[in-house]
This record gives sequence, C-alpha cells and structure tokens, in this order.
Amino acid sequence: MNSLSQIGVIGLGVMGKSLALNLAEKGITVSVFNRHLPGSEENIAVNFVTEQSTKGTMCGYDDLKAFVNSLENPKKILLMIQAGSAVDQQLTQLVPLLDKDDIIIDGGNSFYKDTNKRTKQLNEAGIYFIGAGISGGEEGARKGPSIMPGGNKDAYEKISHYLELIAAKDKQGTPCISYIGNEGAGHFVKMVHNGIEYAEMQILTEVYFLLRYYSHYPPEKIADLFTQWQQEGLNSYLLEITITILRKKEDGVLLLDKILDKAAQKGTGGWSTTAAMDLGVPFSTVSEAVMARALSSIKSYRQQVSATYNNHSETNSISRDPHSDKIKNAYKAARIINHETGFHLLKEASAQYQWDLNLSEIARLWTNGCIIRSELMEQIANIFLSENSIILAPSFIKEIKDAQNDFTYIVSQGLTNNIALPVLSSALNYYLGLKTLNSGANLIQAQRDYFGAHTYQRIDNHDKYFHTQWNN
Amino acid sequence: MNSLSQIGVIGLGVMGKSLALNLAEKGITVSVFNRHLPGSEENIAVNFVTEQSTKGTMCGYDDLKAFVNSLENPKKILLMIQAGSAVDQQLTQLVPLLDKDDIIIDGGNSFYKDTNKRTKQLNEAGIYFIGAGISGGEEGARKGPSIMPGGNKDAYEKISHYLELIAAKDKQGTPCISYIGNEGAGHFVKMVHNGIEYAEMQILTEVYFLLRYYSHYPPEKIADLFTQWQQEGLNSYLLEITITILRKKEDGVLLLDKILDKAAQKGTGGWSTTAAMDLGVPFSTVSEAVMARALSSIKSYRQQVSATYNNHSETNSISRDPHSDKIKNAYKAARIINHETGFHLLKEASAQYQWDLNLSEIARLWTNGCIIRSELMEQIANIFLSENSIILAPSFIKEIKDAQNDFTYIVSQGLTNNIALPVLSSALNYYLGLKTLNSGANLIQAQRDYFGAHTYQRIDNHDKYFHTQWNN
Repeated sequence: MNSLSQIGVIGLGVMGKSLALNLAEKGITVSVFNRHLPGSEENIAVNFVTEQSTKGTMCGYDDLKAFVNSLENPKKILLMIQAGSAVDQQLTQLVPLLDKDDIIIDGGNSFYKDTNKRTKQLNEAGIYFIGAGISGGEEGARKGPSIMPGGNKDAYEKISHYLELIAAKDKQGTPCISYIGNEGAGHFVKMVHNGIEYAEMQILTEVYFLLRYYSHYPPEKIADLFTQWQQEGLNSYLLEITITILRKKEDGVLLLDKILDKAAQKGTGGWSTTAAMDLGVPFSTVSEAVMARALSSIKSYRQQVSATYNNHSETNSISRDPHSDKIKNAYKAARIINHETGFHLLKEASAQYQWDLNLSEIARLWTNGCIIRSELMEQIANIFLSENSIILAPSFIKEIKDAQNDFTYIVSQGLTNNIALPVLSSALNYYLGLKTLNSGANLIQAQRDYFGAHTYQRIDNHDKYFHTQWNN
Repeated sequence: MNSLSQIGVIGLGVMGKSLALNLAEKGITVSVFNRHLPGSEENIAVNFVTEQSTKGTMCGYDDLKAFVNSLENPKKILLMIQAGSAVDQQLTQLVPLLDKDDIIIDGGNSFYKDTNKRTKQLNEAGIYFIGAGISGGEEGARKGPSIMPGGNKDAYEKISHYLELIAAKDKQGTPCISYIGNEGAGHFVKMVHNGIEYAEMQILTEVYFLLRYYSHYPPEKIADLFTQWQQEGLNSYLLEITITILRKKEDGVLLLDKILDKAAQKGTGGWSTTAAMDLGVPFSTVSEAVMARALSSIKSYRQQVSATYNNHSETNSISRDPHSDKIKNAYKAARIINHETGFHLLKEASAQYQWDLNLSEIARLWTNGCIIRSELMEQIANIFLSENSIILAPSFIKEIKDAQNDFTYIVSQGLTNNIALPVLSSALNYYLGLKTLNSGANLIQAQRDYFGAHTYQRIDNHDKYFHTQWNN
C-alpha cells in the first residue's frame, strides 16, 4: 500500500475491530495496529486485515513506527485499548513518534480525571488529545455507535468528518455525535450514560421479578406484556432485548432460568457514583444498582442467609390482582426519576467543571447507537430544548403525578411480599425526598454540631454559621 | 525546658489541641508545633501552651527543627493536620529532620490508600509510619478517644503505651485501642466507622421524622420515647445526644426547628462507599445516607419540586395508630442490618487486603470513645468472639425475625404517606436481597451478554463462562 491512511486504530479488541471495519466500510482508509501478545509471534493486525472480505482499504501493522508512518498528516489515531495504565503505557510509546498537531482519540472507557490529566500533558507536548466516549457495544461499534468526544474543539473538528460517518443516526438522520466539552467532558458524559444504564437494567430486572413472582406471570406472558408496553410509549433497546431474552429457549426450557444470578460489573457504574459523591450530587438510583450487583455476587452468603430466614410460614399467600398496570406505572415513574438523577448530575458537573454541557444535545446523542436509547430519551432531548429539568417539565409533571400512587403502591406491596426492590425504592425515595420541603436533615446538622462542632445554618439566617453548646 | 519531650504533636486544630492536653494530663511530656498562618506573626503553639492551666508539661514551637530537636529518641510525632496534600507537604518538611527508626503517627482522617503509599515511602527512608484513625470528636480526643492504629507493628508497640493512656476505656477498663493491621488498615477501619456513623445518623433522623410527622408526636414526647428505648436495649451515644437535641430550647422554641435542613459532609462516608465499590461489596445503607445528605443540600431545587408536586389533595389524612412499637422494631432491625453491612465490608477488605482484621476487637474499640458506641456494639463485640457474621448469629436471627414484619410495615406505611425513608428502605432491601435465594440478577447477566458479549455462568455449571447469540 503506497498511499497514506486517513486514520489509524490501535487495539483490535472487539470494539477496535468493529470500529475499524465500520470506518473502512465508509470508504475511509485505515491503518490498524496491535501489539504481539506476550510469548506469541502472531501478527494480529495483519491477520485481522487478511480475514476481512470488506471492500474497504485497511492495512495491518505490528510495528508501531511503521503504523505511525503509514498515516497522513496531521496523524489521527484512535486508541481502543483497556482503560487505565495501558493507555499511559501506549501514550509513552506513541508520543515520541508523533509531530505537533497530531491528534490522538481515546475511544475507551477511560476515567474522566485521567482524561483531564492526559489532555493537559499532551497539550504541553503539542499533541491534541480527544477523550471520546463510545457506546453501543460490539454491534453499535460495527453498525453505528453513539459518540461523545471531549477535548480540544479545533482538533475535534479535524476528525469530526470521520466519526460522523461511522456514528449512529438519530430519527432526523443527524449523526449521534457532537462535541461535548473540554478535557474529560466526553468521558464523563459516557460514564454517566453507563450509570443510567446500570439503573435502567436493574429497574427492568425488578419489574420482571415483580411480574414473575408477585403477579405470577409466566415468562412468555411477561414478554407479551413488555411487547404491549413497547406500543404504549415505553419502547427502549433494553426492553427490546429483554423481550428476546424472555423468549429464548434451550432444549425447550427458558435459557434465563439456567443463568446463575451473580451480576458482574466492569466499574463504570461505581465510577459514576464516586463522581457524583465528589460533586456532592445525589445519585442513588445508580448507587443502589451498583450495590444490587455486588449483593447478587455474594451468592454463597445469600444461600446461607436465605436458608436461615426463609420459612413457609412467612410466605405471603394472599390472593391478589396481578396489578400489571400499576407495575407499568412504577416502571415508568422509576425510569423518569432515574433519568432526572443522571441529567441532574450532568447539570451539576457542567456548572462545577465549567463544561457548558448541552443537555438536549447529549440526550439526542443517546437516542440511537447506545444501550440506553429509548422513546423516553427522545422526549428528554425535546424537553431540554426549552426546559432546564426533567422533573419540573410540564409533560413529565403530568406523567409522574399520574403514576405516583401506583409507584408507591407497588414498592410497598413488593417489600411486604419479601421482594427486594432496591432501585425502585431508591427512585421513590429520591422523588419523595425532592418534594419534601422541610426534611429531617436539620437533625443531622444538629448532631454534627453537637459532637463535632461542625456548625449549622438557620432558617432565619442562611448567611452565617452557628454553633451551640448543646449539653448546657 | 531542658529535658526532652516524650512525644510531639504537629497541628493545633480542635483535635490536635485536645489530644495534646489529654497526653499532658496523663503525665506525658509533650512538644507541640503549629505553623504560622499566612500573613500572621502569631506563635500559635506558644500561645496555646501559655493559655493552659493544666499540670502537664507542654512546650510550644513555631520552628519545626527546634520542635524535632526537643523530642527524645526515637522521636514520636503525632500529625493532627488536614488529610490530603497537607500531610504530604508536612512529611516533605519533616522527614529530612528525622533519623532512622523515628515514628510518625498520622492521626487525621487520611484516605487509606494514601496511608498505604506513605507507609511504603517512609519505610524506604527508614522511618516508621503509623496511620491511626481517631474517633470521638473534640470531647473524645480530650477525654478519651477510640484509636485504630495501623502500620508497622513493632513501631506501634513503641508508642502504644502513650496512646493507651489517652484512649477511652471499655466497660472492663481495657483501653479502646488495638493494633489493627498493616499499612492503611487503621485508616480503613476508621473510614468504615464513619460510614456506619453516616447511616446510623440518617436512620435515627428517619425514625424521628416518622414519629413526628407520621405518628404526630411532639418533640418532647419523642425525647421521652427515646429515653424509654435507652432502657430497652437501644442505648447509644447518638440516641443520647438526639434526646438532648430534642429538648434544647431557644427562647422557648425548639432550636432544632430553627436549623436549616441542609446536611453537610466531610467526605469519609463517600470514601467508604467508594472503597466498598472498589472491593465489589454492597454498602447501600451508607451510600444512601451519603446521597440523602447530598439531596438535602439541594434545598432550592427541593423547594421548586415541592411547590410543583405537593398539594393538599394528596395528603394522606387517614386516622391511625402512632405505631411507636413498630417504629422501634424498624429502628432496631435497620441498625442491625447497617452494622451487618459495615462489618461485612471489613471482613471482605480483610480477606482481599490480607489484613487479618479481628472483628470482635474492632467492635470492642467502638464500644467507647467514638460516635457509634452503643449497646448494640457491645453485643457485636461479643458475637464476633464466636461467630463470623452478624446476620447469622443466633441472637440476632431472633431479633431480626421478631422485628421484620414491623420493619416492612413501617417502611411501606412511611412511603405510602410520602415520607422519604432512604436508609430504612435500603436496609430493608439489603435484608430482602440477602435472603433471596434466586434473584433477578440472571436477567442482568443475560442483558450484559446480549449487548456486550460479557458471558455468564450457569446454575448447572459454575466453572465455565458461556456466551449466547441471543437474537438468533
């Protein structure tokens, strides 16, 4: 291959391969690089290119310098490698081979504070660094992901053409990519996306569990009900795949029932919770979803506790209505609150980090190509064109008011029937907490002032801090 | 002063002053150092010593070298300064003045990972570093704190005499201090203490709120009821100060009612949540308590939401029993679950970090001198002498089984009456989740495998990981 490639991709894991193929298919010339695995002679990049039957032009390298030299100037290199120290190691090798104004795009799930730091460091070396969150999993990467790039805006404009070609398209045909903000803003937004995703998955799981073990619906009937919900304004990618899962049989038996109930996680839900705590922002639907996975994973302990505490006399066997309409309203309300929580975090981060995030545009990026795409997300993209809050937007006020009694009823009934509903409960508590004008937090301030002299503000004077000798 | 001091204290904030006085009062000779504040000529340490009328021997310094030279060998220096970069800055100045085998004790709320790092760094320089969690606030530090030292055990033994003299004493008269474990183990345990404290405070707040706005008890009646609970096995320091708070009047009006309901925090609750997420351990009573404070702090947003969502027609004005006995059982159960959660985190941290933590001994340290001292903690110290779990210990099994129906009832009733109960709910959900033999987490694993090829384990084969093409 004599001519230079327009873009380079480092790292041929599932996501890197899919994005390289996606780029090539759009007529972009692509160089790909992968290191040799320890103790292996295999030239992964060359083999990958050889195996492909796509029409696009790709060229594989196992030599980093040759890879870099195969790119046109300014060089544009997409890193698709494991987040963490591997990124720093790769940058250490890569940067000496680059020239001023070259552009590195980190498309992995890097922690936004790492991206902040790398952006600054590389900027000092004259290299542009774009931290781009990319959502959609393997299929999204291959067919069109949602892309959230942050960093230097001028540099972004030099690569936007390529990324727009491979991104998913929204209903109006606009690519699901937009410049997000400075430094780590793109990775931050992707992290919040994943946090919302954790809670959406857990909400759906709790709703499935209620329908199956409270309403006593067989799985096919739940799938039918969810299909009906799709027609009733609740369509989403996660609902769609859940319907497929609820119908997937193996040897005539529901495959789901053969899967061990230990949920794993790769950390971004926890990161987003930590980020929220750093910013002092409540984010409890997500933290409860993270904790629910952690609880599920201590299965052997759960077995001991359940053997100790469950006995038949406890079973609540009252006859009852399956309440599927009420469960639907609980599902609807919990999702609105979860999105309220996620976008509230974005709003606070934008203010505290001075990112000037466009919430409507972020919601629009999330209407296709990513895991949390849904009709609700389309509504939210619209809402943020004119409003500044989900829970205070007129259309959602009506939906929440219409749903709130059923929401409360279902959470109460579920708990009373020994069904753990951590995220439905936390969404309900978040909503109740937000609408509590005068809460019990004054007692916490009094306690803190009592034992730690931490002082408090008064309702009749917000501007000063007071301390009391409580035991005098 | 000609003779050398036995111990030095750097940092004369509230805690540093109180500990220095406590040491001096026990007959220990103490040198104290404080830097000059920016732009000030005041010799804080000398002034502090001058102001004291105690019989003890203290000497104040504003020159770090003179301070270090005033100490006997091996030098023992207690740092009582703001956690974070201030500690590193102080160490940078201090270490060049020290000799091999000198001992630095960091008595602040340092993050345990920082303590891990500092222990290693100082160890390379031949200096011993002890990370000691100290609990009890100003009064505890003055009259006897609970102390959780970690780091080098030999070094600890050289300072234990002094710290045992100033520590609180348990009911048997044994000092509330013990060597905890390597490196940051002491600060980790203190951090978990603070996490438990966050949740205990929030549980008590929710119980107070229920009694006041669900049971419609006036504050004096709540104080009387809490006093009765003290006689019924529920005594604790936090309950005790809450009773005092509920009786504190200003101009004839309850002072509590004049305090703004925005709860602040200094971060250790959030840290412990992050630590739990790092370890993959559920810790939801604490995370919900952290989030509840964050939610309380967005008061102006709460005002907007409450103006939008609260209207009189919603008020649930059914006549009802005040259910104070049921609320007591909910309080009791939630506290047991919260402690179960905290000690479970300690158990997992001990295993993953190889700290070999003695849970009974840790609970014993927490029976006096610290904010979470309580009769429950005394029970727990006993339980862990022979058991490995709170929730599986026979005496707690009985208490939880006796309380569980009331616990569920109260959470349901509270939520139905629009009272946010985030930590009572999360404790209940944690309990229900733990006793759920087969949870809905298999659906989460199926979803993850569907969109991210993350694989799953099977109930009929735990040893392998499976992947399914779900949409075929």
